[in-house]
Amino acid sequence: MSVLVVGSTALDSIKTPKSENPRLLGGSASHAAVAASFFGPVKLVGVVGQDFPKRYIELYGRHKIDLEGLQILPGKTFHWSGEYEANMNNRRTLLTELGVFETFSPALPLPYQKSPFVLLANIAPSLQHHVLDQMVRPKFVAADTMDLWLNIALNDLLKLLKRLDAFVLNDSEAHQLTKEDNVFAALKKLHKLGPKYVVIKKGSHGSILSGPRGFFICPAYPLHKVVDPTGAGDSFVGGMMGYLAARRGSIEDNIRRAMVYGSVVASFCCEGFGLLRTTKVTRAQIERRVKELEALTAF
Amino acid sequence: MSVLVVGSTALDSIKTPKSENPRLLGGSASHAAVAASFFGPVKLVGVVGQDFPKRYIELYGRHKIDLEGLQILPGKTFHWSGEYEANMNNRRTLLTELGVFETFSPALPLPYQKSPFVLLANIAPSLQHHVLDQMVRPKFVAADTMDLWLNIALNDLLKLLKRLDAFVLNDSEAHQLTKEDNVFAALKKLHKLGPKYVVIKKGSHGSILSGPRGFFICPAYPLHKVVDPTGAGDSFVGGMMGYLAARRGSIEDNIRRAMVYGSVVASFCCEGFGLLRTTKVTRAQIERRVKELEALTAF
Repeated sequence: MSVLVVGSTALDSIKTPKSENPRLLGGSASHAAVAASFFGPVKLVGVVGQDFPKRYIELYGRHKIDLEGLQILPGKTFHWSGEYEANMNNRRTLLTELGVFETFSPALPLPYQKSPFVLLANIAPSLQHHVLDQMVRPKFVAADTMDLWLNIALNDLLKLLKRLDAFVLNDSEAHQLTKEDNVFAALKKLHKLGPKYVVIKKGSHGSILSGPRGFFICPAYPLHKVVDPTGAGDSFVGGMMGYLAARRGSIEDNIRRAMVYGSVVASFCCEGFGLLRTTKVTRAQIERRVKELEALTAF
Repeated sequence: MSVLVVGSTALDSIKTPKSENPRLLGGSASHAAVAASFFGPVKLVGVVGQDFPKRYIELYGRHKIDLEGLQILPGKTFHWSGEYEANMNNRRTLLTELGVFETFSPALPLPYQKSPFVLLANIAPSLQHHVLDQMVRPKFVAADTMDLWLNIALNDLLKLLKRLDAFVLNDSEAHQLTKEDNVFAALKKLHKLGPKYVVIKKGSHGSILSGPRGFFICPAYPLHKVVDPTGAGDSFVGGMMGYLAARRGSIEDNIRRAMVYGSVVASFCCEGFGLLRTTKVTRAQIERRVKELEALTAF
């Protein structure tokens, strides 16, 4: 089955102490859509300006991502620029130019409205709502978010949580939202806000699922070097949703393995700037890392 | 087979925003010895003063810990006092009274010198050396440490590393010792310092083993509430060594499961002040949490 992905489609300029990488393909929807594409068909909802490089359209095409829902509008593509410190943990935003994103209103083509799997990748909760409003009985809806929306659109986000099957966020956002230091106590509170499944991402420490069958402790793939973690969280949730949509059987039965696949795609994402590494990955390489993770966690 | 445990035997006064717990049984050797005792015989090497409460001698006795190597000297028992913040993550030391520990020189009774498994729990590296000097061909030697020794006894510690089979330390200590932010890069450097097995403890994020068969990602047991993490690291390594000593078969074959058992004993340790919870645990309760961890990590 196909996954509909809505989120940001952007140009990312990423600086580290060692290099500058201007105008890479970025944005939550780009990372999530490419990650999901390893497993099955993906429909993209987003907006770019007329400056959006043709080679990025071709890149989506190579991943067989349906672009009927990608608006190309007069104006500039959303441009984010950030700088990482030497340890690649701390980053600061240098520049945010919203461009055509400022007035973006996602309009779903008819064939999109019946997509069974919906991934509301990181974007303003009002836009996530707007996409959901257009969907016809989706089978499984997941959303990601970021601290910005907790700060400036908390009410929209809280309303959104009641419309989700799964909510994915990182540990600091979980702490901010629930005021709980303990991740398991936070998960309990997050369920009360609506979602049946909650996934807390902990970067290199892996992730934790809480669902009807209890907790799942999902490992991160061991990386000796992180080149650029931008988009890793989006790749994780994209890979997870792509795998879920591609499998027969119940969500319950598949979601743990789906997280492991997401974790593996995220590991590739971290090994190159932007999408440079992810777009070179093969399904066989993904399977190999999943097998490795099985061996790395067996006892 | 039996485990020899050397380390500190102390009285801990632990303050939190909600309660004060004066003069609990504490110290790295106390936590490690009790943790190891769930799996087989333990010999304790340590020193206490004449003020050491009889009930703590009885507590060791209930865990069948051999006390022939525990010196009772004129003077006061080592007393540590610390205060935790509300989130139980940050603590500060209020007081350290070395007492009889100041001039401690571990002298091993003859039957101790042939112990096959040796755990050099956290204590000055010079004392860890002194114990090793008295051992007759031990089968497996593991050591734990703390940041204090990295700061004031680094040379002794570096020499010790060449005498170990396994070195156990936490992630911030690994970073301090190797200057590596990345835990897997740090593990590589730590092997070069001597030990065949290196275990990095990451608190609630679990632990990582690096050994001849590669990495093992060991989960932490999910706790909804941490009452007091003092001694959790000592319990982890004590449980690990106790399990290893009790099993037939090679270290390679058993060390992953040993870490999981250590992780479970550490989880109980965190559920009460000092050793209050650990000393009430049964082997059956430990087995139940190990089974739970199997289920929590399967995919």
